[in-house]
Amino acid sequence: MRINENFQNLGESYLFSTIARKVREFAQLHPERQIIRMGIGDCTLPLVPAVADAMSRAVAEMGDAATFRGYGDEQGYPFLREAIKEYYADKGVELGADEIFVGDGAKSDIGNILDLFAADNTVLVPDPVYPAYVDANIIAGRQICYISGNAENGFLPMPNPDYKADIIYLCSPNNPTGAVYTREQLKTWVDYAIDCDAIILFDAAYEIFVQDKDLPTSIFQIEGAEKCAVELASLSKTAGFTGVRCGYTVIPHALTRGGIAINKLWLRRQATKFNGVSYITQRGAQAAFSPQGMAQIKGSIGYYLVNATIIADTLDGLGYTYTGGKNAPYIWLKCPNDMPSWDFFDHLLEKSGIVGTPGAGFGKMGEGYFRLSAFSSLENTIEAMKRLG
Amino acid sequence: MRINENFQNLGESYLFSTIARKVREFAQLHPERQIIRMGIGDCTLPLVPAVADAMSRAVAEMGDAATFRGYGDEQGYPFLREAIKEYYADKGVELGADEIFVGDGAKSDIGNILDLFAADNTVLVPDPVYPAYVDANIIAGRQICYISGNAENGFLPMPNPDYKADIIYLCSPNNPTGAVYTREQLKTWVDYAIDCDAIILFDAAYEIFVQDKDLPTSIFQIEGAEKCAVELASLSKTAGFTGVRCGYTVIPHALTRGGIAINKLWLRRQATKFNGVSYITQRGAQAAFSPQGMAQIKGSIGYYLVNATIIADTLDGLGYTYTGGKNAPYIWLKCPNDMPSWDFFDHLLEKSGIVGTPGAGFGKMGEGYFRLSAFSSLENTIEAMKRLG
Repeated sequence: MRINENFQNLGESYLFSTIARKVREFAQLHPERQIIRMGIGDCTLPLVPAVADAMSRAVAEMGDAATFRGYGDEQGYPFLREAIKEYYADKGVELGADEIFVGDGAKSDIGNILDLFAADNTVLVPDPVYPAYVDANIIAGRQICYISGNAENGFLPMPNPDYKADIIYLCSPNNPTGAVYTREQLKTWVDYAIDCDAIILFDAAYEIFVQDKDLPTSIFQIEGAEKCAVELASLSKTAGFTGVRCGYTVIPHALTRGGIAINKLWLRRQATKFNGVSYITQRGAQAAFSPQGMAQIKGSIGYYLVNATIIADTLDGLGYTYTGGKNAPYIWLKCPNDMPSWDFFDHLLEKSGIVGTPGAGFGKMGEGYFRLSAFSSLENTIEAMKRLG
Repeated sequence: MRINENFQNLGESYLFSTIARKVREFAQLHPERQIIRMGIGDCTLPLVPAVADAMSRAVAEMGDAATFRGYGDEQGYPFLREAIKEYYADKGVELGADEIFVGDGAKSDIGNILDLFAADNTVLVPDPVYPAYVDANIIAGRQICYISGNAENGFLPMPNPDYKADIIYLCSPNNPTGAVYTREQLKTWVDYAIDCDAIILFDAAYEIFVQDKDLPTSIFQIEGAEKCAVELASLSKTAGFTGVRCGYTVIPHALTRGGIAINKLWLRRQATKFNGVSYITQRGAQAAFSPQGMAQIKGSIGYYLVNATIIADTLDGLGYTYTGGKNAPYIWLKCPNDMPSWDFFDHLLEKSGIVGTPGAGFGKMGEGYFRLSAFSSLENTIEAMKRLG
């Protein structure tokens, strides 16, 4: 029995586990201190009434012999896939319901979709980046190349046409930097991917935060993307589902490699190694996409965006440099006095009782930067910004 | 971009999808016929009141700002892991809560746990077998060796000490055959695995159906298993969670290979490619393990076991040969007149309107056999057996 030795190439501990441990230790040492958590991107507002009501009704159905449901389709109930299809139609993207796969969150799908690709593909990953992209590929033993996000390119790295990749991760609005690609920039990426025969894995988990009508909220708003992209999205931030677990992955039928439809491969993978999402969760997700649910959800998103503005305004006043905070729930700031990220983490925790995320945890290019999230309560955001001042 | 070519080695379609298609086509051709589904092992009784009530309360908590919960631990909430720990203590198995990982069902974990092992490990799989074991390993490109279950060994194949394996799948009570290993037989498997340095992936999804006190319900009731086994279990059949999605995987700290703790590898895998199970689902699962919930659940299990007895008695009367039906919800019968499995499937569907599962779908050794499940309603089971007669 040989274990998968690629695990030995992973860093010692997952970023957010390390933060959780540090905060736990700090809280034990200083039980009197009120800690404000602006680190992990976790929602704090409750499920909106339309969603909670739909889920209550679904629980009642499941407790009644006349309406109980067992296994659903691995790719999700038609009622939810149709609702997501309509959501995309409103963005000007026409999809078939069978191009949409319901899953238990973008993190699972982002990792599991790698099953579809050979181990010797080269992966192109922006740096800084959501650590799960990198770690999932390290586990699979793939060669990873990084492209630098930095102050010069506004943390929106563009492809180098001299360098070919097979799998490309893009995330816009970006986690951790809050930067958002324009349509023109994404078109350059799509052209590059088609030229390389690469597939873009487009993480759209934060698309609902985009307020600027000119910015794209789906890779499929870009011409040609249906031939080179998979979109991974989530209700975690959209509808406060971080603890409910529902996401979806869009794979157009037009996306083929070596004559094989990627949609069919994913269907086969999911039918083999997945068994669908809770019926109750799917009813909640359907309600999130209803007109009433969407109106309520946009209220929550507006609340978080007010927090983002408060953080941005404070940083402006204090002379910090940052990206994000406008069409995204993250603010990515340059640590003051050229402090390294983890030093600033300790400094902020000890001095102000604020938990953020060290930029270095997102890659080499994140060193010297720091992520604040807008997912706290308004009161805590105001209090944290007062302490920061 | 190269796709994972192992997908080309999979059979054309997943067994249950094929059955679903055949039944759909039959129903369209014969809308007047009342079809009785005894094919896929899907529960028909609703969630018990203790579970539905707990889930209702959890939905209400999630809709209230004061009690909302976002991300939980990837490995599950402590309240549920403690409940599972107690469930095992009642079986005489002492576990630490951190040896238990809550997941979204055994099918996901059975597939995903393969990430931990090198691709060049040899897999030993009983035949007939739950197809997902085989397909998940084909996708990973592993060499698969089969050991024959047959009438002579009562569909309980034993290891051949001359042949070494690295990964061994066992399922008891067995899907599809309903056969159950004795303690002595499992001890032989454990000794063999330790001798080979192999790991047993023990699928205990049907353990709650075991009525005979002498039969084991966990591999960890067998001495030495903590050094060579992972147990995968599920609330799907236990608590009617086929549409709710919750399972758990037990990995003892004592299980190491090459000096590496498998428990730690799985934790790292799940922290990278999974984000936990719905809080609402976990509260439902906790209630299932409460004294009240367990009493109600055992009522449902008793109901299904009555169905199994009715099927077994009918088959006895008609002179069929079969295994299972006593400590399992499956009855594995020899097709009459040496009919091939799919012929008997078509025959039974067309003649009696009964849907079962062709044994050939579970492997070469399943040819000529057929699986009936006890998960229908009592009324349908009685009606189906009347038609069979």
